[in-house]
Amino acid sequence: MNSQYDGFNWMISLQKGELLVESLIKFAKKENIHGGWVSGIGGALSVQLAFYDLQARDYEIKEFNKPLEITSLHGNIAYKDGEPFIHLHGTFSDANMQGLGGHVKELIVGGTCEIFLHNWFKGKLTRSEDDATGLALLDL
Amino acid sequence: MNSQYDGFNWMISLQKGELLVESLIKFAKKENIHGGWVSGIGGALSVQLAFYDLQARDYEIKEFNKPLEITSLHGNIAYKDGEPFIHLHGTFSDANMQGLGGHVKELIVGGTCEIFLHNWFKGKLTRSEDDATGLALLDL
Amino acid sequence: MNSQYDGFNWMISLQKGELLVESLIKFAKKENIHGGWVSGIGGALSVQLAFYDLQARDYEIKEFNKPLEITSLHGNIAYKDGEPFIHLHGTFSDANMQGLGGHVKELIVGGTCEIFLHNWFKGKLTRSEDDATGLALLDL
Repeated sequence: MNSQYDGFNWMISLQKGELLVESLIKFAKKENIHGGWVSGIGGALSVQLAFYDLQARDYEIKEFNKPLEITSLHGNIAYKDGEPFIHLHGTFSDANMQGLGGHVKELIVGGTCEIFLHNWFKGKLTRSEDDATGLALLDL
Repeated sequence: MNSQYDGFNWMISLQKGELLVESLIKFAKKENIHGGWVSGIGGALSVQLAFYDLQARDYEIKEFNKPLEITSLHGNIAYKDGEPFIHLHGTFSDANMQGLGGHVKELIVGGTCEIFLHNWFKGKLTRSEDDATGLALLDL
Repeated sequence: MNSQYDGFNWMISLQKGELLVESLIKFAKKENIHGGWVSGIGGALSVQLAFYDLQARDYEIKEFNKPLEITSLHGNIAYKDGEPFIHLHGTFSDANMQGLGGHVKELIVGGTCEIFLHNWFKGKLTRSEDDATGLALLDL
């Protein structure tokens, strides 16, 4: 993972084989990111997607072990219990250009993954467990 | 809807059951937003999507009344005839991770909806009716 | 193509019939853009999508000659061999709201295409050929 900061935003580039979510957690710790909004594109070798079942209060998980274009990645970096928490959704397409998507649990980078991270300038973004939904929601 | 401004951008969080487009219109009025670019993810309980038929100059509307992941939301806040006008497109996925999408007429928030709003710093963004397309286009 | 700059970001609007990638290249030259992150929505009359086959080191290309909603456009403007290089991925939906997507080679604008361009403030963003993947990767 390479990165550059221009005073407002980060441009980040991941290499083939890197784990996206794990890499963003390491990056947030290393660069002391207080929070931010993530936007990205690229390619994936495989991806683990989840669908949150609000009634069951649990994620259904599917793994796609094939090369995919990452047509969009969006979400944010916040902190839960003092640790970076990456909330990321993505859309993907295969060789037939058909679309799939979901909550991104983890993703192995293909050719590249290019991410633009909008830095958050007002203190630390945090999340707390919400009893009503079973989710860790943003404290705003 | 909760929100925080960091001097450049807003982080916004909507709760289960809130109407996305209606909430953004109220937010724009309350916070006197002059314009901005919206980026978001989350979950939906139902969504009303539209497809603009350029020849018929009309929207075809479909309603999806089932839980969906909001894999991306993008668009902008501008003003038409003095009132906030939300132009929003979205992509969604179901429990099979299959993708759908379109112009978002309205959406009922599921577990949460997290939005990053890039504030526009150069006067009021406005839209006017365009005879050629039948659409309200940005005045730039 | 019309555009306005607010000191941080550009709001850009393209008209029916304009070529998206070609227009962004002209815009980058004319406005002396050093780099940036692109986010967009709109409508397309047709789109040429590509899927990168990492093993064959080549793009498979498919053309969709029908009206589509542009549900998301993301990517960046950088420079390769001194010329603007647009790396753009997109998702689209048809009248049935079904999703497709991929690497955007070119796209003919339908009703409109609205783009938010986050200016890059740290020198020129550049790309170089990478032997391992066959891609032109960001130099960060």
